[in-house]
Amino acid sequence: MNFSSKLIQEAVGQISQLPGIGKKSALRLVLHLLKESPETTKELSASLLNLRNGIKYCKACHNISDDEYCSICTNSYRDKSVICIVEEIPDVMAIENTNYYKGLYHVLGGLISPIDGVGPSELTIDSLIKRIENDKNIKEIIFALSATMQGDTTAFYISKKLKPYSLKISTIARGIAIGSELEYTDEITLGRSIATRINFEH
Amino acid sequence: MNFSSKLIQEAVGQISQLPGIGKKSALRLVLHLLKESPETTKELSASLLNLRNGIKYCKACHNISDDEYCSICTNSYRDKSVICIVEEIPDVMAIENTNYYKGLYHVLGGLISPIDGVGPSELTIDSLIKRIENDKNIKEIIFALSATMQGDTTAFYISKKLKPYSLKISTIARGIAIGSELEYTDEITLGRSIATRINFEH
Repeated sequence: MNFSSKLIQEAVGQISQLPGIGKKSALRLVLHLLKESPETTKELSASLLNLRNGIKYCKACHNISDDEYCSICTNSYRDKSVICIVEEIPDVMAIENTNYYKGLYHVLGGLISPIDGVGPSELTIDSLIKRIENDKNIKEIIFALSATMQGDTTAFYISKKLKPYSLKISTIARGIAIGSELEYTDEITLGRSIATRINFEH
Repeated sequence: MNFSSKLIQEAVGQISQLPGIGKKSALRLVLHLLKESPETTKELSASLLNLRNGIKYCKACHNISDDEYCSICTNSYRDKSVICIVEEIPDVMAIENTNYYKGLYHVLGGLISPIDGVGPSELTIDSLIKRIENDKNIKEIIFALSATMQGDTTAFYISKKLKPYSLKISTIARGIAIGSELEYTDEITLGRSIATRINFEH
């Protein structure tokens, strides 16, 4: 593409490096910014820089945080006896948005995946063990990991490591999604959901 | 959405104000930037600020430019006897990308649209007239405007204004798009393309 301006070319190049944004979308964003007041661009730039330079990771759960400990770990209304183990930060947000869970989290930063060269030491598993050792309030662990081989491997590895601590360990239910029709559910999910059927309350 | 971080909330808010980016996409971009090195964010911010503060508009054709006059107007290989009139800056890029046109441009900055409160004085029509008055090399005007009522109105208005200057005035051809099938072309386009049929070269 011919942009007839090096400044535009530079900005489009930078924006189109972001995931899911091609050169055409990047150009549209750039032209939008040029139509808006210079303050809009200034505020956008500042918020990105503030974010990148100011962001911290919670020392306990490794969630993103503005301070040393995140707003979930420091919230006195949360149930500090349960830790929900998730892969990445967006998973915390997803669970928070359900408004169902009131315990704490632990962000692993990935899943064990030998093919991708990710071993247990790359994840925050040691930090989890230390956390459980130091905090006798923790009674329960919930795995909320992806229903993939990596997720299962990781849950299995961690549960082995947690054996000495006599905790209640569970994993989130796998089955057909609410609202989805039986005939379109894949066989593995359907088979598992029959095997792990729950009592019908009536 | 609960972001558990004011910095993230702020950045997501800023990014999701851009056209075509919702809160979920904005969050994905933000988390991407957090995974990349701080330099990535620094360079992105800098390129946006440089763009917004450094961009100029060509004094002749009103295209975006890094200098007083744009790289098209100052290019000695361009045919300075033809001016192609377009609505917006992306139109210049679209025509440039065809590699078919070697003349100059004039960016109107919009189309005459009484409903939207856009009159001729909001556009760069006066500047076009002055340009034609001062430059006796200009012999031909091509309208490359949208095939809408606003586009037709604007072309009609400008062509009236240009009457005293004895220029060759044309508008880009309207007809069925190359590669498109006749039966799916709308009636108005099809009817017009029959009325404005061109000689078949054989």
